[in-house]
Amino acid sequence: MQGTTEEARAAAYTPTDRTVPTRSADRASYDRELVHAILDEGYVCHLGFVRDGAPVVLPTLYGRVGERLYVHGSTGSRPLRGAADPGLPVCLTVTHVDGLVLARSAFHHSINYRSVVVHGIAHQVTDPEEQRLALDALVDHVVPGRAADSRPANKKELAATSVIRLDLDEVSAKLRTGGANDEPEDLALPHWAGVVPLRKGYGTPLPNADLAAGVELPDYLKVL
Amino acid sequence: MQGTTEEARAAAYTPTDRTVPTRSADRASYDRELVHAILDEGYVCHLGFVRDGAPVVLPTLYGRVGERLYVHGSTGSRPLRGAADPGLPVCLTVTHVDGLVLARSAFHHSINYRSVVVHGIAHQVTDPEEQRLALDALVDHVVPGRAADSRPANKKELAATSVIRLDLDEVSAKLRTGGANDEPEDLALPHWAGVVPLRKGYGTPLPNADLAAGVELPDYLKVL
Repeated sequence: MQGTTEEARAAAYTPTDRTVPTRSADRASYDRELVHAILDEGYVCHLGFVRDGAPVVLPTLYGRVGERLYVHGSTGSRPLRGAADPGLPVCLTVTHVDGLVLARSAFHHSINYRSVVVHGIAHQVTDPEEQRLALDALVDHVVPGRAADSRPANKKELAATSVIRLDLDEVSAKLRTGGANDEPEDLALPHWAGVVPLRKGYGTPLPNADLAAGVELPDYLKVL
Repeated sequence: MQGTTEEARAAAYTPTDRTVPTRSADRASYDRELVHAILDEGYVCHLGFVRDGAPVVLPTLYGRVGERLYVHGSTGSRPLRGAADPGLPVCLTVTHVDGLVLARSAFHHSINYRSVVVHGIAHQVTDPEEQRLALDALVDHVVPGRAADSRPANKKELAATSVIRLDLDEVSAKLRTGGANDEPEDLALPHWAGVVPLRKGYGTPLPNADLAAGVELPDYLKVL
């Protein structure tokens, strides 16, 4: 369903004033597939909004359905209440740190990373069907396929949960890859230069103490 | 030097309206040591500020010196220019994802995490000595001890680099730990429940292609 819509879309997001960086513009990308891949690999986003004129940045779970991102929270949460009509201006950012870049010069030390920044207006989801799809996407974002292997939200839980939607429209990715870029006159210095890769590691799953007898670890957790 | 100052401080930050969460207040902490530990373990922060009335959240490197955080960038960067007098209201957030929490119910899925949120006014660093200390802290944040094993910034690099300072004053940590908290009536459901731990993994350091002959991998990278 979503696939057909996506195939008809352009392969890249259209840059805007806000999504063209003032520096290192060569590190920016608007490629739709790349943006989706970076978003899908993350666990938390950093959601920014303005409260009383000051910025607030909170880490939170998110999910993606095609060109829509969803964030959820208690109906009592301040940012989610703020997303009622006419919506809340937000900036949602997801970042992966891929490596530590050690240069001979202090100045050229850096981090290899991939990030996505989404600007837009977050809207409260009011359609019950969209709310259900969004909550499934949030659970499947934690572990793909997990929504189908859990007890769906009941009426009380749905009523207690507020979901906001942010369309992927004003979007950019930014990446740094590769080794250290030292000045030519520093190349002979005796300091080691290169990259220390960083990667996500999964530990052995820890079953809940109150897990019912006979419940086995599902296959989708064995492949993490 | 900094140690003496810190020992004289209270063991906890004073909560404010902005640092007391409206929900899950039991997950909040103001413990100074805990806040420092979470900050020191991160590689990038998410820096939020307001531009033209809208929020912007960008990932960036940071460093800590006692009760001060430093962020740097090109002198041409928009947020850093905005930190000239009287300063720029910012929110700086650092988050670690420690585990995936799988509950029997979709509703109780979660993430184990540790985060720190700092609110305040960022000021441009104009004192050359403080700028040097801040840049050392930024390099040592990537790898402790690395600043002493690299070529310090020269005048041209210092002139091209803008550093902003954010004092640790209005600060809170937030943590979720432990297993899934399912409803009593869901405990017998056949879905696996528990935590998949996530941890940072370091790969084998990759030397730069242009590394001078005979430069060995330093000991401080062998212990990562």
